[in-house]
Amino acid sequence: MVESVFMAELSWPEWEARIKAGAVIFLPLGATEQHGPHLPLNVDVILPTAIAEAVARGLGGLVAPTLQYGYKSMPRSGGGQSFPGTASLDAATFSHTIRDVIRDMGMHGARRFVLINGHFENAWPSVEGLDLALRDLRAEGIRDVTAMRLEYWDFVKAGTLARIFPDGFPGTELEHASLVETSLMLRIRPDLVDLARIPQEGRASFPPYDIHPPPPGYLRESGVLADARGSSREIGEWLFNDHVEMITAAVRREFPGMRP
Amino acid sequence: MVESVFMAELSWPEWEARIKAGAVIFLPLGATEQHGPHLPLNVDVILPTAIAEAVARGLGGLVAPTLQYGYKSMPRSGGGQSFPGTASLDAATFSHTIRDVIRDMGMHGARRFVLINGHFENAWPSVEGLDLALRDLRAEGIRDVTAMRLEYWDFVKAGTLARIFPDGFPGTELEHASLVETSLMLRIRPDLVDLARIPQEGRASFPPYDIHPPPPGYLRESGVLADARGSSREIGEWLFNDHVEMITAAVRREFPGMRP
Amino acid sequence: MVESVFMAELSWPEWEARIKAGAVIFLPLGATEQHGPHLPLNVDVILPTAIAEAVARGLGGLVAPTLQYGYKSMPRSGGGQSFPGTASLDAATFSHTIRDVIRDMGMHGARRFVLINGHFENAWPSVEGLDLALRDLRAEGIRDVTAMRLEYWDFVKAGTLARIFPDGFPGTELEHASLVETSLMLRIRPDLVDLARIPQEGRASFPPYDIHPPPPGYLRESGVLADARGSSREIGEWLFNDHVEMITAAVRREFPGMRP
Amino acid sequence: MVESVFMAELSWPEWEARIKAGAVIFLPLGATEQHGPHLPLNVDVILPTAIAEAVARGLGGLVAPTLQYGYKSMPRSGGGQSFPGTASLDAATFSHTIRDVIRDMGMHGARRFVLINGHFENAWPSVEGLDLALRDLRAEGIRDVTAMRLEYWDFVKAGTLARIFPDGFPGTELEHASLVETSLMLRIRPDLVDLARIPQEGRASFPPYDIHPPPPGYLRESGVLADARGSSREIGEWLFNDHVEMITAAVRREFPGMRP
Amino acid sequence: MVESVFMAELSWPEWEARIKAGAVIFLPLGATEQHGPHLPLNVDVILPTAIAEAVARGLGGLVAPTLQYGYKSMPRSGGGQSFPGTASLDAATFSHTIRDVIRDMGMHGARRFVLINGHFENAWPSVEGLDLALRDLRAEGIRDVTAMRLEYWDFVKAGTLARIFPDGFPGTELEHASLVETSLMLRIRPDLVDLARIPQEGRASFPPYDIHPPPPGYLRESGVLADARGSSREIGEWLFNDHVEMITAAVRREFPGMRP
Amino acid sequence: MVESVFMAELSWPEWEARIKAGAVIFLPLGATEQHGPHLPLNVDVILPTAIAEAVARGLGGLVAPTLQYGYKSMPRSGGGQSFPGTASLDAATFSHTIRDVIRDMGMHGARRFVLINGHFENAWPSVEGLDLALRDLRAEGIRDVTAMRLEYWDFVKAGTLARIFPDGFPGTELEHASLVETSLMLRIRPDLVDLARIPQEGRASFPPYDIHPPPPGYLRESGVLADARGSSREIGEWLFNDHVEMITAAVRREFPGMRP
Repeated sequence: MVESVFMAELSWPEWEARIKAGAVIFLPLGATEQHGPHLPLNVDVILPTAIAEAVARGLGGLVAPTLQYGYKSMPRSGGGQSFPGTASLDAATFSHTIRDVIRDMGMHGARRFVLINGHFENAWPSVEGLDLALRDLRAEGIRDVTAMRLEYWDFVKAGTLARIFPDGFPGTELEHASLVETSLMLRIRPDLVDLARIPQEGRASFPPYDIHPPPPGYLRESGVLADARGSSREIGEWLFNDHVEMITAAVRREFPGMRP
Repeated sequence: MVESVFMAELSWPEWEARIKAGAVIFLPLGATEQHGPHLPLNVDVILPTAIAEAVARGLGGLVAPTLQYGYKSMPRSGGGQSFPGTASLDAATFSHTIRDVIRDMGMHGARRFVLINGHFENAWPSVEGLDLALRDLRAEGIRDVTAMRLEYWDFVKAGTLARIFPDGFPGTELEHASLVETSLMLRIRPDLVDLARIPQEGRASFPPYDIHPPPPGYLRESGVLADARGSSREIGEWLFNDHVEMITAAVRREFPGMRP
Repeated sequence: MVESVFMAELSWPEWEARIKAGAVIFLPLGATEQHGPHLPLNVDVILPTAIAEAVARGLGGLVAPTLQYGYKSMPRSGGGQSFPGTASLDAATFSHTIRDVIRDMGMHGARRFVLINGHFENAWPSVEGLDLALRDLRAEGIRDVTAMRLEYWDFVKAGTLARIFPDGFPGTELEHASLVETSLMLRIRPDLVDLARIPQEGRASFPPYDIHPPPPGYLRESGVLADARGSSREIGEWLFNDHVEMITAAVRREFPGMRP
Repeated sequence: MVESVFMAELSWPEWEARIKAGAVIFLPLGATEQHGPHLPLNVDVILPTAIAEAVARGLGGLVAPTLQYGYKSMPRSGGGQSFPGTASLDAATFSHTIRDVIRDMGMHGARRFVLINGHFENAWPSVEGLDLALRDLRAEGIRDVTAMRLEYWDFVKAGTLARIFPDGFPGTELEHASLVETSLMLRIRPDLVDLARIPQEGRASFPPYDIHPPPPGYLRESGVLADARGSSREIGEWLFNDHVEMITAAVRREFPGMRP
Repeated sequence: MVESVFMAELSWPEWEARIKAGAVIFLPLGATEQHGPHLPLNVDVILPTAIAEAVARGLGGLVAPTLQYGYKSMPRSGGGQSFPGTASLDAATFSHTIRDVIRDMGMHGARRFVLINGHFENAWPSVEGLDLALRDLRAEGIRDVTAMRLEYWDFVKAGTLARIFPDGFPGTELEHASLVETSLMLRIRPDLVDLARIPQEGRASFPPYDIHPPPPGYLRESGVLADARGSSREIGEWLFNDHVEMITAAVRREFPGMRP
Repeated sequence: MVESVFMAELSWPEWEARIKAGAVIFLPLGATEQHGPHLPLNVDVILPTAIAEAVARGLGGLVAPTLQYGYKSMPRSGGGQSFPGTASLDAATFSHTIRDVIRDMGMHGARRFVLINGHFENAWPSVEGLDLALRDLRAEGIRDVTAMRLEYWDFVKAGTLARIFPDGFPGTELEHASLVETSLMLRIRPDLVDLARIPQEGRASFPPYDIHPPPPGYLRESGVLADARGSSREIGEWLFNDHVEMITAAVRREFPGMRP
């Protein structure tokens, strides 16, 4: 058996031993969602999984299997559900998946979880899923489970953002399939990036409201919301390092007693 | 962009083009479940994914992201939920995941699906999920979706079984973490098999009923139900080839007009 | 008040007294489903009820009202949902019925249950229902409920099968509306059997996969899957006796201290 | 095959033929609920089933299998859930059962339904179930289903009530396990009535509100709400005849073209 | 901060202090439903809120925000769902709202609740919601919550009804948008009553059954079920005073130790 | 009958007439949530209702009854669920409320909706509710409903923010119970503001992650996240005017043909 940071590659006695020794479970929350013509549908699976892997490796934790399907894409942050290939879950389905998985591992002794979200729209339903999991565990008499929940992109140094966006960071929401995600993909899975297909349109601009169903012209045709031009592996490296370093520090702070 | 059989590695315009050209979607149904001390928790993810990949490659189809968490393990077929590391979904959560994913891809134009199940207990709730998906699609006015649903282990030649089990095949249910799955893992991911830890107990024997919760002594302590001794990469090869060849033939029969 | 083995025929003080004395509750799981042109829609209600009655009588148990509607019929085991007169429940509805009924009786003091399933497709959703019932009872602080769950047809002696099927038993799934069920009906409710309408087609043969919706020609037109010719009351008697004797023995083994 | 008014006793081709000929489906809604020390738990199953049988026989309709478990008993109308032996469903489970059964029969061609309720508390959740069934059928493109829904005890002549209650009818709600139900049981299943155990307490009196959970002394200890003394088969005959005659007339009025 | 009987107008420390001092929470259950051409859609919000306010003021209790949307209107008691402007909830949505709100306040220390229903059709689903709330609280280990649940119109003196209806009270169900509700509105919000538009049709008469969907001519065209002519502020005053006085007495009886 | 912008104050024929004339329905989404010691629990009800009222008045629209209970409060944006008096809904309950209300009004002819959210955490589940509503309406054959969905605080001019926050706007999330909301309350309901109780702590600072359950010291004790000092009616006036003007313009842009 390999020594692995991915719990799925362990046998059950190995998993049990690791949990008894206090291992934190990292659960990456992904999605299958359009990311423009130059990126694959699994960007939101690959990025949080890679970050979770690096953090877990440093802390002696375990990465649970990444959720492959996420909550529905929204036009202002992900392009919306109308792009072919985006395959999403209803909110209840997504929340219940998290509830069930956390509850089961909690029933088996896991007490510390970190949910690492890689898809903007997963944020809220993952909060709900976690709340339902803890409620169910309390009903089983288990009251000492603690869970962190975070979006990886919130862990970045001001200096890094300033270097990448000398004119100011346009904000997380528009970063869908744009410079940040493209650069991270160039760092982690460059074989899945087709730089030649990066749209040349510049940033999308949305009115400050949703409209259902999206009227003609509301959606960006390419599915890219900001500008992916200028993406590079080097930028990806800066971001990836920030994410791993800062998430590691946060986990260490909240869950003391981890491997130094 | 790579030419990939995994839809997650395509961009959305590529996915759309493939679907318009008639590509069949293969959805592997996995689980995170104990498979004894010699196999990892992801056997039921790896095997149907590998088989789906081979079949889809031959037929010009696309493999959708594998469901990583399955329906609850049962004592008589998978060892039961009490083994640490087994992380499962309630039936409704699992069924709704299938419903949502099929519905979304159906809304985006996909018309032909093959669900390849790799976890015994997924069988029934995947039937329900599919039924709900088709019902929802009919409510959207989409009535021409067709879906096959199969357990990969049902596609094996009598001669192969006779060669592997000269004393007679003990049946699918007890094959959990046993000779068949171990051999297939030796064929597909030998790095995750630890032959030295194969239990030496022989086959489990269950009374013909469930009992909830399982009383002491009811469960096999190792989580292995039959005998994994004698597993080999060669046997895995025989099985894998049967599965791919026979599933391919079945899909071709039901969905004519595929790439020859 | 009659002395009855059916709990529905007792008054509540009688029910309470029986439960306090340790009576086991037998819950038959039925269905309203086509069984060919020669059998009525209630075969799956009548058979498990009659078996439960006989077992309960022998053990001093109580038979709860039989669930009249079951989980959806599937083409390969029951002919499928397209036959008129088949009236089925969604999986969640069926599971929740079991959950609610077991939970309520558990809240009222019942501690030992035996679910006797008479409809193939009920198997999985009844497992789920039972799991949800025990979870709910744990949340109420009740942790000492035990439940067996079985399909009655699994309780048959090898010698009996050999006598009935001298050329080998074709397997449970195809036995829908065929020799086994027809013979049992001839034993229990011969007035509901019309031997003259037994189809003369021989056994159905299915490919090893489901296909939704079933294509033309996939379904057996009569709804009978194997061969009902040769059914007799005598065969029904052999089967019925095996079922009752072997289930009785199993219950006695798991729930010691029953009436001898 | 017998000529039966119970659809469960028909084969599927017979069911189909009857529906094509315009047969109305009568669905009795029962419960498993305490009815005092002198009546069995199945009063609410037996009475609406018997009435449905008589009405259907007169009109050439079919009686679907009676729902055996109903919505939760309430203290002011049924004694409440705290009586042992009362086994009830959550509202959603009960409503979804009706939804599923009506939807399935609607998908198979049935167009006219009459729900005959025999348990006071079933009234509201059966309205919801019917509403959900018609909504689901509309989503399938079926818009011509019509359903009546009634409580059988509302169909009684003023003269009959005056004869039975010369001092005035105390109202439906308190009639639980009292003179009306006891008399009807004496008419239909006298073997299940134990007149010697009729409580001698007179009528219960409730404040005009619910209180959860019921405080000590709130509930009638026997489970009988009004007075069952004076019950007779003759009174049962008067009531039964009124119910059958008046429901028959109502169905004939709403569903013209029935067998005269 | 105002000294208010409406909890919504308190700050959280004020709410906490009041609950710790034993304040009862009054939750009015409203609806947005047609009430004829002379009354607004919010009659069922205004009336129970005003009554709850008066009762709570007398007893030192707190009024929680009124539920603005209720369970579906039924033809025989509210005119039915087909009237424009009636905006209702599915039963599960309504019940879950009550469950969630009671559960949350119970988690925050509230132990005594009074649900004051102002919409006939809310009765049953509010029972269910309360039952689910208490179940969830028990799962959290909270077992000392008590809740009353009432329809305000049941609290009226016989003498008052006799004065208002000298020919006999026609019964609660037909009182939709009729003399009682119109008079109460004249007492509480006369600005929202348009006496000139009171229909001149007299009382509706319904057969003793529902029919779905309602056939032509079944519904009262105006939405008024009985007769609103003769409504007056004085009658409203009589009714309002009865409601407040009698509900106050009932709450004081069940929840002793309230402000005298 | 008053001429009212609140649909609840109209009779059903008036509602119908307004809808037929093209009136837009404005649905404010509120919450019952702690807002520090100086503000009442209903801030998130009052503010979006007042804004909706002003916008609807200008455009000839109708304001539907405000949802009084919202989705669960989160520590980083609302203080979290642990503050007494916060009474929230599970995500599914909240989403289904929106689904049901929109669906019902859509069935009655309403075609244009604007959801005005006043509670940060309502954002996501209101998206889900709207998505489910449109799905259900499509199943009813209604495909021409359009709905805008917005958070009112996103409609503010850069100049206004600069005037209010000369050192830079700290961002929406921390604005809970702080300067913006306090000023708006001073503009709209000054009677409910207690300036003397404004905490003197300055802005909260949160790590960029959630932690469940919140550890000691994580939550701001007062429930106020930023600084409410300096709040004034004048600032409230600036904000209110921006919100109304800009939302009005947006609605006019998306729903042309409104009253000028």
